[in-house]
Amino acid sequence: MLVEIVRGAMVESRHRGAFAVVDAAGKIVRSAGAVDQPVFPRSAIKPLQALPLLETGAADKYGLGAEELALACASHHGEPVHVQKVSAWLCRIGMGEGDLECGAHLPTDVPSAQALIRGSQPPSQLHNNCSGKHTGFLCTAACLGEDHRGYIEAEHPVMRRVITAVGDMTGTDMARAPAGRDGCGIPVIGLTLQAMAQGMARMADPTGLHDERRAASTRILDAMAAHPLLVDGTGGLAVEVMLVAGDQVRLKPGAEGVFCAALPKLGLGLALKIEDGAGRAAEVAVAALLDRLGCFTDDQRMALHPFLLPKIKNVAGVEVGVMRPAAAFDF
Amino acid sequence: MLVEIVRGAMVESRHRGAFAVVDAAGKIVRSAGAVDQPVFPRSAIKPLQALPLLETGAADKYGLGAEELALACASHHGEPVHVQKVSAWLCRIGMGEGDLECGAHLPTDVPSAQALIRGSQPPSQLHNNCSGKHTGFLCTAACLGEDHRGYIEAEHPVMRRVITAVGDMTGTDMARAPAGRDGCGIPVIGLTLQAMAQGMARMADPTGLHDERRAASTRILDAMAAHPLLVDGTGGLAVEVMLVAGDQVRLKPGAEGVFCAALPKLGLGLALKIEDGAGRAAEVAVAALLDRLGCFTDDQRMALHPFLLPKIKNVAGVEVGVMRPAAAFDF
Repeated sequence: MLVEIVRGAMVESRHRGAFAVVDAAGKIVRSAGAVDQPVFPRSAIKPLQALPLLETGAADKYGLGAEELALACASHHGEPVHVQKVSAWLCRIGMGEGDLECGAHLPTDVPSAQALIRGSQPPSQLHNNCSGKHTGFLCTAACLGEDHRGYIEAEHPVMRRVITAVGDMTGTDMARAPAGRDGCGIPVIGLTLQAMAQGMARMADPTGLHDERRAASTRILDAMAAHPLLVDGTGGLAVEVMLVAGDQVRLKPGAEGVFCAALPKLGLGLALKIEDGAGRAAEVAVAALLDRLGCFTDDQRMALHPFLLPKIKNVAGVEVGVMRPAAAFDF
Repeated sequence: MLVEIVRGAMVESRHRGAFAVVDAAGKIVRSAGAVDQPVFPRSAIKPLQALPLLETGAADKYGLGAEELALACASHHGEPVHVQKVSAWLCRIGMGEGDLECGAHLPTDVPSAQALIRGSQPPSQLHNNCSGKHTGFLCTAACLGEDHRGYIEAEHPVMRRVITAVGDMTGTDMARAPAGRDGCGIPVIGLTLQAMAQGMARMADPTGLHDERRAASTRILDAMAAHPLLVDGTGGLAVEVMLVAGDQVRLKPGAEGVFCAALPKLGLGLALKIEDGAGRAAEVAVAALLDRLGCFTDDQRMALHPFLLPKIKNVAGVEVGVMRPAAAFDF
């Protein structure tokens, strides 16, 4: 059991799951549950998926800075800052919103969503939380003079590079792993939590990587730490953790209760999956895990307290419960 | 395991839980998981909580019809029809929105929520999904000349009647059961799934109840069948099931993955809880359970197919997976 939802005198709901904390060699430092079963990593491995953006030379050719690299790793909340910067980046590579193939959804950020609704404006593909990642994909096609149409398909050169990089970094035979389609249209390929964590550990401790990949890994993680808001959105756990402890943690959520993190100072990576896919539980679990791993000072723990032990309030604002880490974190 | 979330070639997430199908005597007809552990029933027992509205004489004194009784059992979606009818009912008992103590939240119904946002109108307590239940509570206080202020507190006569009725119908010692506070402010008291299901079974097969309660149970269940939309909201599972098979099923969801149902033709009640609290899984599970219990004809099953095997589509509208009942329903 990873997380308990407490209301009044009782645990009302319970979330199971598994996690792996792994070093760059793949050695498990800490784990719970089945870490050798495939899990769809969803958006939690965007930092790995961003490697070709640097390794193709696209980032240098188009003069991308840390902001664009952070957006390439983002599940952003569709706030004006995200939309404007992705739009400007698309413009820089001679493309526009219509070249994206991620689809449109309302911003995750509530005020931004409400602003669109008030203006009777439908959301665009720029508001899609994956628009930065997709712009990074398009950027590699532009750099190499490829026809970018259909870039979300597994057979397209853009996606082949992404899949190869993730396979290399996680030691996974991608052709044999179970596959599906992600929310934003690209392939999702099942990786074990141990493999995902190792991929993140190799970014965190890139000493064993070839020069180009070592440099790419460092630039990506540095960009996430430099611009947490661009990776996530206002009030998000990943933003708050990286604002408070960005020197220790690069944190990335994925749909269906997944988190990955790179811990450069410890030279470790971690991957976590809530069995039932609940984001609320993934947040409490990953916060507890980072805390237990010693990623936070006392002051940082105080600052992150609302995420470590989130209160549950009812409609009238009365505190009626709490979400708390369960026995799996008693170490 | 009750429900599997499938994406592409793999089960991506899994939902555990328990259910009990019970007759009016409390005999378990079918069950899975731990049905003897306390669960917070949340809104799933609103039909039981509505009994005092009839038994105090309030329903007759104020000339309430099936519409008001349906609203008293509702977790409505805050659509204009719900708001107007609750408002008119409050007016009829000489009260107004300000007498409610449930708090305000945006309508569950998306178009209704967006209409408020577009008009820059904050939601009122009338939009709270529990406003009908609360108006029923206020109605009993008005009928008996009680000071209604504080009616959401366990010690208030209004709530004492509600708690006593639920305890009687479910055979639960309410004073010793674990307690907390519900989303709308009233007490939540832990009941076993077996007890919840028995309470619903006694409404479905009220032959063993005293005359007054038998009449009240029948009127409440008849009202739910007559006005499914008032009990729930446009597109909701409970609405669709009762529109299609209202002669067989009276269905009520509760927060944190709970469902209760009364099955008058079978003389049975059922209660279900998803361990992790996920509503998506509770819907798939209860639909599967009703189907396995023979509540649907072939035509009805066809009509309810979108709820029995809900498709998962991605942002671009591509079908990427399905939610399906798991092994617990292989009977």
